[in-house]
Amino acid sequence: MNNFVWHSPCKIFFGAYTQADIAAECSQYGKKVLIVYGSERIKSNGLFDNVAKQFVTAGIEYLQLGGVLPNPRLSTVHEGVAICKKEKVDFILAIGGGSVIDTAKAIAVGAKYSGDVWDFYMNKGKITETLPIGCILTLAATGSECNGNSVISNWDSKMKRAVGTPLLLPKFSILDPALTATVPRDHTVYGMVDIMAHVFEQYFSPTKSTYLVDRMSEAVMKTVVAIGPKLLTKLDDYGYRAEILWSGTQALNLSLSCGKDTDFASHDIEHEVSAIYDIPHGGGLAIIFPNWMKYVYKTDINKFYNFAVNVWCIDPKGKSDDTVALEGIEATRAFFTSLGAPSTLAHYKIGGDKIDEMAEKCTMFGPVGGFKKLEKQDVAAILKMCL
Amino acid sequence: MNNFVWHSPCKIFFGAYTQADIAAECSQYGKKVLIVYGSERIKSNGLFDNVAKQFVTAGIEYLQLGGVLPNPRLSTVHEGVAICKKEKVDFILAIGGGSVIDTAKAIAVGAKYSGDVWDFYMNKGKITETLPIGCILTLAATGSECNGNSVISNWDSKMKRAVGTPLLLPKFSILDPALTATVPRDHTVYGMVDIMAHVFEQYFSPTKSTYLVDRMSEAVMKTVVAIGPKLLTKLDDYGYRAEILWSGTQALNLSLSCGKDTDFASHDIEHEVSAIYDIPHGGGLAIIFPNWMKYVYKTDINKFYNFAVNVWCIDPKGKSDDTVALEGIEATRAFFTSLGAPSTLAHYKIGGDKIDEMAEKCTMFGPVGGFKKLEKQDVAAILKMCL
Repeated sequence: MNNFVWHSPCKIFFGAYTQADIAAECSQYGKKVLIVYGSERIKSNGLFDNVAKQFVTAGIEYLQLGGVLPNPRLSTVHEGVAICKKEKVDFILAIGGGSVIDTAKAIAVGAKYSGDVWDFYMNKGKITETLPIGCILTLAATGSECNGNSVISNWDSKMKRAVGTPLLLPKFSILDPALTATVPRDHTVYGMVDIMAHVFEQYFSPTKSTYLVDRMSEAVMKTVVAIGPKLLTKLDDYGYRAEILWSGTQALNLSLSCGKDTDFASHDIEHEVSAIYDIPHGGGLAIIFPNWMKYVYKTDINKFYNFAVNVWCIDPKGKSDDTVALEGIEATRAFFTSLGAPSTLAHYKIGGDKIDEMAEKCTMFGPVGGFKKLEKQDVAAILKMCL
Repeated sequence: MNNFVWHSPCKIFFGAYTQADIAAECSQYGKKVLIVYGSERIKSNGLFDNVAKQFVTAGIEYLQLGGVLPNPRLSTVHEGVAICKKEKVDFILAIGGGSVIDTAKAIAVGAKYSGDVWDFYMNKGKITETLPIGCILTLAATGSECNGNSVISNWDSKMKRAVGTPLLLPKFSILDPALTATVPRDHTVYGMVDIMAHVFEQYFSPTKSTYLVDRMSEAVMKTVVAIGPKLLTKLDDYGYRAEILWSGTQALNLSLSCGKDTDFASHDIEHEVSAIYDIPHGGGLAIIFPNWMKYVYKTDINKFYNFAVNVWCIDPKGKSDDTVALEGIEATRAFFTSLGAPSTLAHYKIGGDKIDEMAEKCTMFGPVGGFKKLEKQDVAAILKMCL
């Protein structure tokens, strides 16, 4: 086990109607709030009005920036930064899923920076100051509600890049399972794939002696495996939504990487695909991850053996370790397929013509991954397996 | 799942030599520190000197209060409160196990209170202000390093009582597995029993639909079951100590009670035993818990069935649910016995003569427990099973 620092001061309000006291939370941090959101759904379902009314009553002034899209755009971030600087906004409230929260985080950085916020996403300089942010989460997926990560797409350069700093940890996040109950089936599936992917990326670690954290990772995976299919039969079930929502937070609040090196190569590879083709992130991950697994599993067959037995209940009797490991990988693929997630890039009509470009960009700052370090040719090989 | 608030801003430094920067942490909160500790072991092994030297270099003045005993005494708390008030101490550093941390917490409350701090332990009034505290943990057991609980014994009234408030959450805790490597075998065992007990008390909940948190609870239990016996064969093994240390924190940082009602009746009952007989807390729990389980399991056989199958790998084939549940309880007893923990109060030469007094005091503020509410006669019945 590696040394680690665990510090997660984000305050989580979990449960029904937990957005009822949001003005009290926000007023601890600011008096002029920029509300960032995605679709207009939060206006038609009364959520925006509920928040706005609370703000008016509490004497909190608010501005708004809607229209955040999946694979959120740098251009939207720039809009938000301009508003914050012009209007002297002192707090940002994200109402939405990971794309909205990641946009809010990028705006929070840009509002306190004289240059272009994209600098930080291109590894130029270190974030030293941000506006505080809070979240009302409406989609279980990215874990962005309880970590300091932000992923933004720059459509000019066709780049999708991440930053991560404790400064971007939300002050609070409101997680009401009922607010996720109207997420359509496909995005519910993409969210669950994303959650599983986050756990994989911490579970498949080169670090030895991580028994407890591995078991906790398996707990999250087993929950998605057990509850996910039930949720798809009853999308508005509060209890199932609650399990998946809390799984999403646990999957990437970084508790599952305590003491471990991680391997986010599959996310890195997927970012290159969606930076060019604008496909749903969870869809891309469902395609890439089982192929990544097949490409790397021999690095530590024992880990994949445990994965197969503990998560997928593969019976190892009379089988070689290699067979058991491969059956676990096949079970992963079969699970994603059973949820309705795609398994090939062909599903999105993506061919092999840009594989070299994607592999090149993916490794522009050096090899990716930690379980197995992947050079450009490795990334290209995995992408070819995905066609 | 119930609504819940999860907020755990304690900063954990986990790993080898993580005490090396303690002055930097302490200086964020105060310039005059009371160091609270137990045995003189921390002076002979260099830990105290290491901290003291850092304080001198950083210009932090320090005072010290040693001699905290297991089942920590209110009299020691009073000593500490007097020092803090007289010397205008602004930060308390606990170096030790749960007893030391709980004493430091009680002193932190008393230092900001004009009356007797015991008032709060007797449910008189609400804690509204405390000194900040930090910890260097030297024993894996209570989880006090990452929660706001404190348990103190009053030897005048033979009462052992708890308080809990987020105000008492340590600002930081330093968890170096190497500092726990010299804990003797018996206290290592008591610590592991305490850890298991904490998980039981959150796992056996009356709340339904708690799938993920139940699996995470099982992850902690499985770790103690798998690693505990190995640790006892090699008490100074860093990796094993690390697993048990992190298990202790996870077991009672309250993440395992997110969305659940809990049942701390066994702790309540044990407190009455050790308040009179001053037995080791973990020893008392090892005796009481399997009997509590036998007394209550029919309240929710399904829960005990899952416990048996998921934690103890009991094969349920061809057995009634009742049999499987009872086999899980027997496995719990057998595990504690295999570690060398006691199974009857007779082990401590405790007879039945004070059972009525203990049951009376245990339920003085009403029935205890949540999985099954226990009245005085229930507590007495469980204690009789323990003889």
